[in-house]
This record gives sequence, C-alpha cells and structure tokens, in this order.
Amino acid sequence: MSDHHVYKKVEIVGSSRVSIDEAINNAIAECSKRIKNVEWFEVQETRGHVENGKVGHYQVVLKVGFRIENS
Amino acid sequence: MSDHHVYKKVEIVGSSRVSIDEAINNAIAECSKRIKNVEWFEVQETRGHVENGKVGHYQVVLKVGFRIENS
Amino acid sequence: MSDHHVYKKVEIVGSSRVSIDEAINNAIAECSKRIKNVEWFEVQETRGHVENGKVGHYQVVLKVGFRIENS
Amino acid sequence: MSDHHVYKKVEIVGSSRVSIDEAINNAIAECSKRIKNVEWFEVQETRGHVENGKVGHYQVVLKVGFRIENS
Amino acid sequence: MSDHHVYKKVEIVGSSRVSIDEAINNAIAECSKRIKNVEWFEVQETRGHVENGKVGHYQVVLKVGFRIENS
Amino acid sequence: MSDHHVYKKVEIVGSSRVSIDEAINNAIAECSKRIKNVEWFEVQETRGHVENGKVGHYQVVLKVGFRIENS
Amino acid sequence: MSDHHVYKKVEIVGSSRVSIDEAINNAIAECSKRIKNVEWFEVQETRGHVENGKVGHYQVVLKVGFRIENS
Amino acid sequence: MSDHHVYKKVEIVGSSRVSIDEAINNAIAECSKRIKNVEWFEVQETRGHVENGKVGHYQVVLKVGFRIENS
Amino acid sequence: MSDHHVYKKVEIVGSSRVSIDEAINNAIAECSKRIKNVEWFEVQETRGHVENGKVGHYQVVLKVGFRIENS
Amino acid sequence: MSDHHVYKKVEIVGSSRVSIDEAINNAIAECSKRIKNVEWFEVQETRGHVENGKVGHYQVVLKVGFRIENS
Amino acid sequence: MSDHHVYKKVEIVGSSRVSIDEAINNAIAECSKRIKNVEWFEVQETRGHVENGKVGHYQVVLKVGFRIENS
Amino acid sequence: MSDHHVYKKVEIVGSSRVSIDEAINNAIAECSKRIKNVEWFEVQETRGHVENGKVGHYQVVLKVGFRIENS
Repeated sequence: MSDHHVYKKVEIVGSSRVSIDEAINNAIAECSKRIKNVEWFEVQETRGHVENGKVGHYQVVLKVGFRIENS
Repeated sequence: MSDHHVYKKVEIVGSSRVSIDEAINNAIAECSKRIKNVEWFEVQETRGHVENGKVGHYQVVLKVGFRIENS
Repeated sequence: MSDHHVYKKVEIVGSSRVSIDEAINNAIAECSKRIKNVEWFEVQETRGHVENGKVGHYQVVLKVGFRIENS
Repeated sequence: MSDHHVYKKVEIVGSSRVSIDEAINNAIAECSKRIKNVEWFEVQETRGHVENGKVGHYQVVLKVGFRIENS
Repeated sequence: MSDHHVYKKVEIVGSSRVSIDEAINNAIAECSKRIKNVEWFEVQETRGHVENGKVGHYQVVLKVGFRIENS
Repeated sequence: MSDHHVYKKVEIVGSSRVSIDEAINNAIAECSKRIKNVEWFEVQETRGHVENGKVGHYQVVLKVGFRIENS
Repeated sequence: MSDHHVYKKVEIVGSSRVSIDEAINNAIAECSKRIKNVEWFEVQETRGHVENGKVGHYQVVLKVGFRIENS
Repeated sequence: MSDHHVYKKVEIVGSSRVSIDEAINNAIAECSKRIKNVEWFEVQETRGHVENGKVGHYQVVLKVGFRIENS
Repeated sequence: MSDHHVYKKVEIVGSSRVSIDEAINNAIAECSKRIKNVEWFEVQETRGHVENGKVGHYQVVLKVGFRIENS
Repeated sequence: MSDHHVYKKVEIVGSSRVSIDEAINNAIAECSKRIKNVEWFEVQETRGHVENGKVGHYQVVLKVGFRIENS
Repeated sequence: MSDHHVYKKVEIVGSSRVSIDEAINNAIAECSKRIKNVEWFEVQETRGHVENGKVGHYQVVLKVGFRIENS
Repeated sequence: MSDHHVYKKVEIVGSSRVSIDEAINNAIAECSKRIKNVEWFEVQETRGHVENGKVGHYQVVLKVGFRIENS
C-alpha cells in the first residue's frame, strides 16, 4: 500500500431556501451521489437571491476534496 | 425596452443576537424598505461581538445588488 | 487611566457537529475560559469534514480579539 | 478654493450582449445620467451569462469615482 | 421537483488571436460541446503570448458554472 | 427599541498636501457634513500624486461606516 | 487545424513523506495516468501534517492544466 | 547552452481611446521597442478616465515577461 | 550556537487619538513590556472610530515578530 | 469526552541555510519543544536573505495548528 | 503627438526614523533623481524595524509610476 | 552617511529541472551578475511545465530586493 495519497478538489454550489448550513449539506449530499471518498469541504463564497425583500435562496460555493481511488 | 440593465451594489452590515442567517435577513429586510428591485447579496465578512464569554451579536457585511430603475 | 488601549488577536478553530453558529460558539466559550476581556471575533475560514456523504463536523477558523490587561 | 478634494466611489454593474468594452460604456453612460463629475472607473470583475452555448451577456462590475461637489 | 439546485464550476482557458471577447467565446463554445446546462462564467485571469512585438494570443482563464442534471 | 442595527458602508477618497492623517480627516469631515451617525472608517488604499519630485497630494481611499437611522 | 486551443485546469493535492518537490511529482504522476496532454502546474498551497514533532507529510495543492483534445 | 532560463517581469500601463485590447497592444508595442525577447503578459488591472459621461481612455496595467539575454 | 533562528509573530492592535504613527508606537511599546527580542512589525490594517465628525481614534493592526529565545 | 475540539494556530518563521524543506522542519521542531498536540502546518510565505550572490537563508513563515488540551 | 501614453511602474522601499509620511517622501525623492516624469505612487506595504522597544525605522513599499518618454 | 536607505524590488523568474530550491538559486545567481547589493527575495508563485507525465521545469517567480547605491 502506498504511503501517500493524491486528492482532487472540485468546486460546487449548493443552495437552500432555509439556511447556509442546509445549502452546504445539499451540495455535499449531491456530490456524494456521484463521487466516492469525499473527505472535506472548504467554503469559498456565500451569496444568495432576494425575493420580495427576503432571502429567497442561500447559495454557498464550496471546494470539495476526495481521495483518488487507488492512489 | 433596453436589452441590457445596469445594477448598483451597496455595502451594508446586518446584525443579530441569534444567528448568521438572521443577521443576513435583517440586513436584507432593512435594505428593501429603502431600495426597490433588490436582486442578490454577497457575503463579504462575518464577525461579531463577544459578551460574557458568548457571542453577543453576529455581524455580517454584505454587498447587496439592485437594478437601477429604467436602466 | 490611559486614553488608548492595546488589543491582541489570536487565531482559533472551533468545531461542531450541528451548525456553523455552534462551531463559533464552541470556540468563543473555550477561548473565554483562558483569556479575559474577549471583545470580538472575525471569521477567517469555514470548512469541515464529510462522513458518509454528510457534513461530519463544521470547522470555523476565527480571529478572536481581547484587550491586554492594564493597557 | 480648497486645495484638496474629496471623491466618492460607487459600485455598478454594466452589461452588454456585444462586448466587455460596451458593458463598461453602458455602465458609465447610465451612471453619468445621475451623477455629476464622474472622473474614473476601475474594473472589479468580469463575468456573464451563457445562452445556448454562447455568451448571452457580458457583465462588468466597476467602481466609478466622482468628485463630491463643493468639496 | 426540487426547490433547490446544485451547480458545478470548472476552470477552462480559452485563447484567440483576435480579442479577449473572442477568447471567452471560444472557451464557452468548446465547453458547451461537452457539458449541458452551462449557465454563467467568471473571468479569473487575462494574459497572453507575445510574438514579434505584438499580442500573439490572448488567453482568458474562466470559471464556467453549470447545473448538475437532476439536481 | 430594536436589539439590532443595520449599518451602511460608503467608499470615499480624501486628499491632503500635508499628510496621510490629514487626508483621512478631510474625508471624514466632508462625509460627516452629509451623513449622520458616522461611526468608523477602514483604510483601503494609500496613494498620491508626485509634483516636481515630491509628494503633491496624499490620497487615502476609505470605507466609512454609519448606522442607518431608525434601524 | 484550429489556430487556438482550449485548456482545462483541475485542482489536485499531492503528498509525500520526503519533500515538497516529491509531493508535486506524486500529484503530476497520478494525474498523468488519467489525463492526456498535461502541460503545466501552479502551486496553490503548501501545508502538511505533523507527527511526533516532525513533518509527517507535505501536502501540496496544485492546479494542473491540460489541453482539451481536438480543441 | 544552459538547460534553464531566467526571466524578468516589468509592470507597464497601456492606454487607448478605443478599447481594452488596443490598450494592451499599445503597451506591448512600446515595450518591445526597448526590450528584446518579450514573451508573455499578464493583465493586473483594468481602469480608465471618464470624459463627458463616456470612457475617455481605457488604461490596462500589465506585467510583461521577457527572457534575460544569455541566461 | 545554532546557525538558524526561529521567530514567532503575534497580532496586536494599537490605538492613538493623535496619529497612525503614534498608534504603531503604542502597540510596539506595550508589546515590548511583555516580550523580549521584538525585531520587526508589519501593518495589516488601518482603521478607526469617528466621534462628532472627526477621527476619535486611529487603530492599527500589526503583526509583530520576535526571536524565540535559545532558538 | 467531548464530540468536538478547539484548536489554536500560531504563526512562526523557520529558517535554514540548506533548503525550504529544512526551514519548515526547523520551525516544527522548535515549536514542538514548547507546545503539545501540534497537528498541522500551513505555509504562508517563503522568502530569504541573499549573501554574496547566493541564498544565505531560506525563511518560511508558517501557521502551526495544535489542539487545545482538554478541549 | 500621440493620443495615448505608456507608463511604467517600479517598486521601491523608502525608510525613515521619523514617520510613514517621511519614508514615502524619501523614496519619491530618491526615485526622482534617477527617473523623469514620475507621476504617482501607490503604497503596497508598511512595516518597520524595532530597536529597544521602539520603532527604529518605518519602511514603506511603494509602486511608483512614470510616463515613458516619447510614448 | 544617510540614516535611511532606499531599496528597489525587481521581479524575476528562475527555473530548474531539479528542484524549487535550485530554481530560486538560479534566479538569484543570474540577478547578482547584473545588480549589486542584492539583499533579500520573496517567493511570489511556484509553477512549472510538465513533460511526459513528470515535472519538466520548476519555475519560481521571485521579488528580489537590493539597496540603491548611495541612497
């Protein structure tokens, strides 16, 4: 077994009508359906749309890191 | 009707004793009382005051974007 | 009494299984056990670990500012 | 007459279906309808929308500087 | 239907002998051949090669955002 | 009375033939003629013009924060 | 043949118990097993784990650029 | 012949009444009159003057890279 | 004697009613009461409070570097 | 046992006559003599002194993270 | 006469035992002895040495801009 | 003799087939052939070319500082 790993980071944007925390969870959940070995995330930006004077959607831009299989 | 718009961004700071999400909502609500066509926000900074070893206020610095009327 | 103060800022990382807000509070609470006169915090980074396709821990890197005693 | 001036900077977003240069010009033209003494601009960000696999709109975020009257 | 979406951002570099605008369009066109639902781009860097004392190629580094299908 | 406030930040540029400190003061003084409740400033950039091999004007770009009335 | 190319950049993290140079090489080697036409890299961050008061692993975050085939 | 080269980067500002692309070309042309082996440029900032409510000059700040002779 | 040293940097905030220069000096003086071998400082941020339309306090955030004893 | 930890980050500068890797190791070794539970480092800056046309010392500015005991 | 100019920016560091303002002036004066048409400066960094618990020298890193002759 | 000095910083790019450390040394050596009083360097960027799935050249962008003679 190798004594070192290689990881990849991808950038995704999650959204939620409810909270910043849920926007992150939505992104992680979607990402994990397609990618194995997701290990960490880093928030890059937090933003959102306004509808009728209230936050309509929170949008959180994340970098998500996962281990490359067999690396 | 024009096929392009012009937007303006203003920088505001919302605060809340409860959560970061609420500080954002307080800022958007206040802003929407005075400005029409608010369309989006971007979080610039998150900070706060500490009182007796606990978060006293969350303070969130936002850029808020709105469409300039008749542009 | 002096008409000016000197403050120090330290960098800490709080974590929580529940939310970003709680990770900040955990850091502030821990910090206040050891340091007097904690007055403000500034969020530097928000990140976390993923476990089984969900957020395992939110991790928030903060700068915490306190007044240097007798300054 | 004062030997110093004070300026203000506002942040606006111009757009164009044609080019980056035109998006800047659209923003400056709109801005100059409402503000006197506009003197300079600084490009902050360039971005845009995609429609059917082509650039639909260029969007340019600018800081625009103008002299405050009688300053 | 979900009330929230998840987006992915990829980083590409377009080039053109003619102009910055064309370098962006070349990148978007190439990208749209391979990816569905491309919705926006953000310019990260503008640079280029010099040949015989003139701009040989403009190179524009873009982030391109697209909606993850069925998200 | 509300238990939270909303603040706005504007960006201004002060200048002075004498010093950086005076350029800041000139900007704050001008700003306070037009805006109530100015509470803090943040220096963004320091620059200036050169005349005959000497500093002609110091120019200081500031963000100035004030409380929105009745917020 | 086209007179312009389109490139993509991906973000990977290499690690090594030995040195920063080797961590970069490990990442490039792993990446080249999966991607053709890798042409350049840009170091984004250098960090690592500590074990027993010594560097356990160097970790280097890289952007890696490659030409999109047939572009 | 050496198997490695050394390059220098200088910072110049080109301007044009017409477009951003031309401002870059003016800077590269001027630079190439004085320096041999100019190989690449990187845009640092785009800004300009406003005259009568229109862009008077585009100003583009560039880093220009050239190979040091005999290196 | 070792042929290399290890330094530590701490972040402090000095303030003054008079000038930026004095705020720096106040921070250095306070810091030197508690720490030996202070060797350099780096200004991180300059800001301040406004009182009655004038600068009330200048606040300067500094990193201060000192040599770790016996390193 | 708590299900969350709190970490602190300190900023140190290691140096070496030999290499960047050794400057990092010198800093980590010195740091570990004084602090328990050091877990990771992040390189902030790499710089150095020049002596007689050669690198005299490499200097690497690091953030070093450690777990606060009993947190 | 050309309707556009080309400028060059160089980076210099001025120092002073007295004040930040004087460090800037020392740099501008030295620079103007060697370069014609110096027109503006931009402060990049402010730092200094500490001697016996006081500021020994202020050091200010500037970009200085001048018009290239005959451009 | 003056009690203050003026320094200049130039930006150079060194390369090496072997290591990052050697790329820095190559740049410093080349620079010192042409410039007197080189005193320090600051790493700005680390990047490189890939050849056949391996690092072909490390390229390190440096700022190099030297004292202006007779300043």
